Amino acid sequence: MTKPIIFLQRAFREEFIDKIHAIAPDYQVKTEITPEEAAAVEISVGWSEKFNEPLLSTNQLKWVQSISAGIDSLPLAEFSTQNILLSNGSGIHALSISEHIIGVLLGYYRGLNQSVKNQEQQLWGQNTIHYDQLAGKNLLVVGTGHIGQQLSRSIHSLGVNVYGINTTGHPVEGFTETYSIKNLAKIVSGMDIVVGILPGTQETYHIFNSDIFEKMKQDAVFINVGRGDTVHTKELITALTEKSFAFAALDVFEEEPLPSDNPLWTLPNILITPHISGLTVDFQNKFMQIFLANLKAYVTTNALSRNQVRLDRGY
Amino acid sequence: MTKPIIFLQRAFREEFIDKIHAIAPDYQVKTEITPEEAAAVEISVGWSEKFNEPLLSTNQLKWVQSISAGIDSLPLAEFSTQNILLSNGSGIHALSISEHIIGVLLGYYRGLNQSVKNQEQQLWGQNTIHYDQLAGKNLLVVGTGHIGQQLSRSIHSLGVNVYGINTTGHPVEGFTETYSIKNLAKIVSGMDIVVGILPGTQETYHIFNSDIFEKMKQDAVFINVGRGDTVHTKELITALTEKSFAFAALDVFEEEPLPSDNPLWTLPNILITPHISGLTVDFQNKFMQIFLANLKAYVTTNALSRNQVRLDRGY
Repeated sequence: MTKPIIFLQRAFREEFIDKIHAIAPDYQVKTEITPEEAAAVEISVGWSEKFNEPLLSTNQLKWVQSISAGIDSLPLAEFSTQNILLSNGSGIHALSISEHIIGVLLGYYRGLNQSVKNQEQQLWGQNTIHYDQLAGKNLLVVGTGHIGQQLSRSIHSLGVNVYGINTTGHPVEGFTETYSIKNLAKIVSGMDIVVGILPGTQETYHIFNSDIFEKMKQDAVFINVGRGDTVHTKELITALTEKSFAFAALDVFEEEPLPSDNPLWTLPNILITPHISGLTVDFQNKFMQIFLANLKAYVTTNALSRNQVRLDRGY
Repeated sequence: MTKPIIFLQRAFREEFIDKIHAIAPDYQVKTEITPEEAAAVEISVGWSEKFNEPLLSTNQLKWVQSISAGIDSLPLAEFSTQNILLSNGSGIHALSISEHIIGVLLGYYRGLNQSVKNQEQQLWGQNTIHYDQLAGKNLLVVGTGHIGQQLSRSIHSLGVNVYGINTTGHPVEGFTETYSIKNLAKIVSGMDIVVGILPGTQETYHIFNSDIFEKMKQDAVFINVGRGDTVHTKELITALTEKSFAFAALDVFEEEPLPSDNPLWTLPNILITPHISGLTVDFQNKFMQIFLANLKAYVTTNALSRNQVRLDRGY
C-alpha cells in the first residue's frame, strides 16, 4: 500500500523535512502532487482554493495545518462534514504585529510620518509636526488572542493602560479589565486607542462601523490588523472625513490590494500599510514549532496539541 | 532696597508663578525686564544670548536654571569665573526622546516609513517593504544619562539587549554592560543599533566619524538625538552613500534648520526629523518639578538639589 502523504503547500528547509520524517516515518512528504497522489494526502500544510476539489473529494484528508492565523477563507463547512482536523498558525506573527502596532502609534504620536513626508520635499517644517505622548494612554485591544496578549505585554511596559474585549468578557492575563464584545460601543468612548485584531466570522463582519466610530474620542486612534471586513470601509471614510476621531491606520482591507481609486488613499488622517504587520523573520522556525508539536501528537494520539480551530465558531 | 529678581525668560502658567512666590517671598518674579532691572536679576530661568551682557556685567546673577538639557551654547566660562550656579532641564524630555527612538526603529524595521512614501503615490507596493524584527537586537546607548536610562528601561522590555557607553565605563542600572567612551570604535562592531545621546563638549565633537561608521555592521542603524556636532556630517554622508551601515536617523544637525541643499536630504537610507524628539506634552509641569525643588533648596541652603551642571566638564 502507498504511504499516506504529508503535502507541504509551501517549501520548507531541509532540516525541517528531516524532522518530519523522523516524527512520522510512515508518511511520504511532498511539496508537489500529481492528481493521483491527491487521493493519498492525509495531512495538508497550508491551503489554497485550487485544492478544494482534489483534496476533499476522496475522504482521505484528515488534518489541515493552516499557515496563517486567519482561516475564514478555507472551506470550513466541508472540513466539518468530513471531520477534518484544522489547526492554524496563530502566535507566529504575534511579535511582528505587536511591533507594527507600537511603531504605527509612535509614528503618529511623535510626528514621524509627517517628517517622512516633509523629507520628501526637503522641508524642515518643525511647525507642521503634531506631537503627543504614548505613555499614559488608554488602549483597547479588540480580540485578546495571541496577538492581543503579546501587544498587551509589550505596550504596557511603555506606560500604556491596556483594556481588552473578547466574546464573553472573560479575564485575560495582562489586561487591566476585559469586556464582552456586546459592550464595544460603550467602551470605546473612554479609549485613546482602539486596536482591532478580530478573526473574520459572521459575528465580526463590519463590527467597526459608524456606531463605533461616532462614539470614539475626538483625538482617538483606530488601528486594524485583524480582518479587513471587520471594518465598514465606507463608514470609516465618512468618520475620517468628518473627523469623528483623529487618525486611523489600516493594514488590512475589504479588498486587497486596496484599489488605487479607493478614497482611503488620499485622506490626510490615515496610514495605509499593505498587509505587512505579520511579516516575520525566521518564519519557518516559528511555524515548525507548532506543526512539529502537532505532528507528534497526531501520529501518537490522533489528536492535535496546539492551535486547533473549533470549526463551529471559526477560530 | 529693591527685592532681587527671578527672571523667567519664558512664560509659565499662573499656578507656577504662585508657587514661586510661596517658596521665595523675598523675590520679585518678572518675565520682562528693563535695562535697570537687569542689575537686580539673581536667578534666571532659561537663557538667551542677548542677556550675556546685561545679566553678566554686574555680578548680581547667582543661578541660571536652563530649560533644556544641553547647555553648551551658554557662556560657561563666564559663569565659572563669577561662580554662578547652573542647573539644566535634563530628564524632562527623557520619555519623549525614548518614544521617538523606539518609533524611529520600528518605522524602519517594520517598513512604515516606506509605506508612508508609497501611500503618497497611492501605491500598494508590498514588495517594496523591507522588514525586520526589533526584539533580539543589540542596542548601544552612547551616553547613559537620564534619556539613555529611560530608553534602556523601555526598549529592554521590547526584547532588546541594551549596552551603554559613558566617560569611564561605570556601571549604570538597566544596562547589560557599560564601556568607556575610549572603546566606542571597538564596541560598535557588535551592535545592531547605535544611539547617540551625547552632550556637546570638546570631547564629543565629531566623535561619530568615519572611524566609527566603518566599523558598524552592514545592517546596523545609527540614530542621533544628542548634539548635532557630535556627528561628522560629511563623513556620515560618505558612509551612507557607500552603505557602510544600513540606515541613519538624525534629529539634530550641525546646522539647523538643515539647509535645503544639504546632501543628507536626498539619501535613500536616512530619516530626517526636525529636532522634534524632545517635544514634550505637559512640559511646564515637568520643568517646574525641577525648578521648584531647586528654588526651595536655593532659598534655604543657597545650593541646588537637582540637575546641577559641573561647569568644568560641561554637563
